[in-house]
Amino acid sequence: MTEPLNGATGPAEARERFRAGLVRPTAGIADGYAQANLMIVPQDLAFDVLLFAQRNPKALPLLGVLEAGRVSGPALAGDVRTDAPQYVVYRDGVEVERPTDVAHVWRDDLVTFLIGCSFTFEAALVAEGIRMAHQDAGVNVPMYRTSRRCEPAGALRGPLVVSMRPIPADRVADAVRITSRYPAVHGAPVHVGDPAALGITDLSAPDFGDAVEVPEGCLPVFWACGVTPQAAIMESRPPLAISHAPGHMLITDLPDRMFQIP
Amino acid sequence: MTEPLNGATGPAEARERFRAGLVRPTAGIADGYAQANLMIVPQDLAFDVLLFAQRNPKALPLLGVLEAGRVSGPALAGDVRTDAPQYVVYRDGVEVERPTDVAHVWRDDLVTFLIGCSFTFEAALVAEGIRMAHQDAGVNVPMYRTSRRCEPAGALRGPLVVSMRPIPADRVADAVRITSRYPAVHGAPVHVGDPAALGITDLSAPDFGDAVEVPEGCLPVFWACGVTPQAAIMESRPPLAISHAPGHMLITDLPDRMFQIP
Repeated sequence: MTEPLNGATGPAEARERFRAGLVRPTAGIADGYAQANLMIVPQDLAFDVLLFAQRNPKALPLLGVLEAGRVSGPALAGDVRTDAPQYVVYRDGVEVERPTDVAHVWRDDLVTFLIGCSFTFEAALVAEGIRMAHQDAGVNVPMYRTSRRCEPAGALRGPLVVSMRPIPADRVADAVRITSRYPAVHGAPVHVGDPAALGITDLSAPDFGDAVEVPEGCLPVFWACGVTPQAAIMESRPPLAISHAPGHMLITDLPDRMFQIP
Repeated sequence: MTEPLNGATGPAEARERFRAGLVRPTAGIADGYAQANLMIVPQDLAFDVLLFAQRNPKALPLLGVLEAGRVSGPALAGDVRTDAPQYVVYRDGVEVERPTDVAHVWRDDLVTFLIGCSFTFEAALVAEGIRMAHQDAGVNVPMYRTSRRCEPAGALRGPLVVSMRPIPADRVADAVRITSRYPAVHGAPVHVGDPAALGITDLSAPDFGDAVEVPEGCLPVFWACGVTPQAAIMESRPPLAISHAPGHMLITDLPDRMFQIP
């Protein structure tokens, strides 16, 4: 019988299971290792994506870039084509497929961006007693398109996407302090407490992921999210782009502690 | 009679004088405004330069990137083709020309990188009583190729280039503390006190800029230098690249204080 995946599962073992076809969100797997948002584009769009990341570092903190045709790198002993649980293939900005690997669409001119993920700081929040509502509910973190625009770069433009976590009012300052120490994985919140100011009209209807309740005494706290480049792909409509499916991240070999500053 | 340039000269006025043909190093001009190293390359090399910067952030801290054909931007009201005092044109990695403007080699596919410069933190060092030997001598800061290799990116590879400032032994800790607060302009030193460990055999023979003496009681302290991309161009030999002449920087409209962290 196959063991269930959990926090004790190592990165290589988790990737092997996903390579074999397992599909599930990756929150709570391979504790202590950074998970990455994926954005894979043809070489002629790669400069724009890299510049978009440089200009919007809170939403697109880069963990690594694999040059054209490369499928692994120092951050990742595995294979980016097969090792995330699920992918999204976009053509002209429209999702056309949600496969469990992308070997069939792979080309040697594809450049891969590994983008930091807030799952890294969630462990630090939980370790200091701040519970994650989506983890407790066993669902994906809720994510929202905002009315805030990213700084455009070349052909790429789009809204900032944020993830939301309900935080008890008396722990908001702690949540800010703790996540500030992880600038390479989105860092401090971009907003606290007022969804309308971000153009979010209904917290119960996230654009990606699953809704969670904001209990009495908690504030909704918003962090820049690595799904932002996917929203930019949808708006900018390049011929081809590949991402992970939201919440279904690529587990890297990079220890989370690498991304913590004092 | 034309006024001499000095610390009180504003960025726009200084650029106007350089545009008119004045050639001189820019240290000590337009106090409080960031000066930038320039690297200008054709679009097909731009991804490699941006990735090289992303992988070697201490040597290539980006202040801004102007997309193909753009000659000004938010960081810079002027014109990158004319407003540095002097440029170097490289063909196949070899310096072919050192003109005072590059309008004659400009093409609409050129992408400009503005890279942070240690002149920004020099003012902060001087303000805390740490004198700059090259400023006192009225010469350019000494710069050296090291035996330390940059992380390569695509076709780009090369050595780390460092600038050197003699610092009194009892102020080295202060110099580290002060420059650490400027991560976007090279930040803390990469090395203190041992030129041989960086492969520098003779401090009196810098590869760029001018020699300065290291007085008794001072240590040579080394910072990553924005001339690093020029050394990479020399080694990687792309068909065309344009930089500023070392020490002859582009003065931006960005206040130095923007680059200071608490």
